[in-house]
Amino acid sequence: MHRLFLVHPIPAPGQTLLIEGDEAAHALRVKRLGPGDTLALLDGCGVTALARVDPPDFQPASRRSPASLRLTITDRTEHPPPSPALDVFTATPKGARPDDLIDQLSQVGAASWAPLHTERGVVDPRPAKLDRLERIARESAKQCGRPWLLRIDPPRDLRALLADPSRPATILADASGEPYRPMELAAPSAIRLLIGPEGGWSPAELQSARAASATIARFGPHTMRIETAAVAAAAIIMAAP
Amino acid sequence: MHRLFLVHPIPAPGQTLLIEGDEAAHALRVKRLGPGDTLALLDGCGVTALARVDPPDFQPASRRSPASLRLTITDRTEHPPPSPALDVFTATPKGARPDDLIDQLSQVGAASWAPLHTERGVVDPRPAKLDRLERIARESAKQCGRPWLLRIDPPRDLRALLADPSRPATILADASGEPYRPMELAAPSAIRLLIGPEGGWSPAELQSARAASATIARFGPHTMRIETAAVAAAAIIMAAP
Repeated sequence: MHRLFLVHPIPAPGQTLLIEGDEAAHALRVKRLGPGDTLALLDGCGVTALARVDPPDFQPASRRSPASLRLTITDRTEHPPPSPALDVFTATPKGARPDDLIDQLSQVGAASWAPLHTERGVVDPRPAKLDRLERIARESAKQCGRPWLLRIDPPRDLRALLADPSRPATILADASGEPYRPMELAAPSAIRLLIGPEGGWSPAELQSARAASATIARFGPHTMRIETAAVAAAAIIMAAP
Repeated sequence: MHRLFLVHPIPAPGQTLLIEGDEAAHALRVKRLGPGDTLALLDGCGVTALARVDPPDFQPASRRSPASLRLTITDRTEHPPPSPALDVFTATPKGARPDDLIDQLSQVGAASWAPLHTERGVVDPRPAKLDRLERIARESAKQCGRPWLLRIDPPRDLRALLADPSRPATILADASGEPYRPMELAAPSAIRLLIGPEGGWSPAELQSARAASATIARFGPHTMRIETAAVAAAAIIMAAP
């Protein structure tokens, strides 16, 4: 079923709404949806819905006219966010690799991603890049039927993250750690996962993580690229926090 | 440290060996290794070594002369294969996506990958594609320091895999399953992981998997692409078989 991502709230069943712009054009001209067809809506904030395409108020004069799509909501569901809420902070991979990172983190159910400033990290994503990653998170949510959008958060500094007094359980991935074991007594509802740069954490960074009582754990037998480490560790933590 | 992949066995410490061809040219002309430098060797079959570059027998006449590199082994280690031995069978993703699949499965420590024939699968990789994937597995082993190469195996049919009387524990990923739980009593030393095509398993396939006592499990809250499902599930199983 075709899925539409809405930037405005999804109303109650029986209500109608009007979609315009690229999403409407794609649904009408590429997916060839017409009156009576059903499509799925998601708002990225936990609400999904089914909607029926209504007959248009008027036929557009030509294929180049602005497209619009009138819908009636037939069903509306509110979903709880995935648990635990996993916030992932990584050194930024080079080139196009952040695109795959965001797409895969979204599929495995992480709550957010933010670039992490580290001593040996070399790439600082520009604002245009972060905008692009938000678009990828929206596309991925449509693709994998994710009711909650993966949040793209502003860059953070390792030191500031570790010093945050209210911080949730923090796990730092490093080959020097023991293999990751789920938290035994109380599975936390929020977890921060920190993935370092290709050159690894500096000794001072590992020392401050230990001093801040972060868990240092490894997530596999081999050295992994940033994006593979992030996706493997996120999948393992989501499966057994 | 620069890593070289050897297609022939790595001899005992103190022995010398001669590297020729592209690997030698890359080490000499791109990495600019010279006499006295140390490099790492791996044979993909569990042996890694350190070697010292010896002075050349003669200087090559020009940069275009065939390159050769004489090495003395200084240290040699035999590594056990990762446990469990995880054989991954997936429907083949389209386009360049199998490249990322192999690279990531190699990093998370799977033992092998093979294309899986399914009812709704659409892509059958050609022999040239499988050759390319073997090259990617070698590059990935060098990159992540993996002593055992990810094996690329010939295509298999789901029915034949399920009918195999000697088959190891088999896990089929599907959204209809319960969240994956590690095997409680005896963690198996060998596991087969089966990932279906984008269109999903057919009802008949799910039925034959149940009849063959395969475990049907899900590995996350959302629908995943083939390669993300394979990497997430492999990471989860390797972490707690």
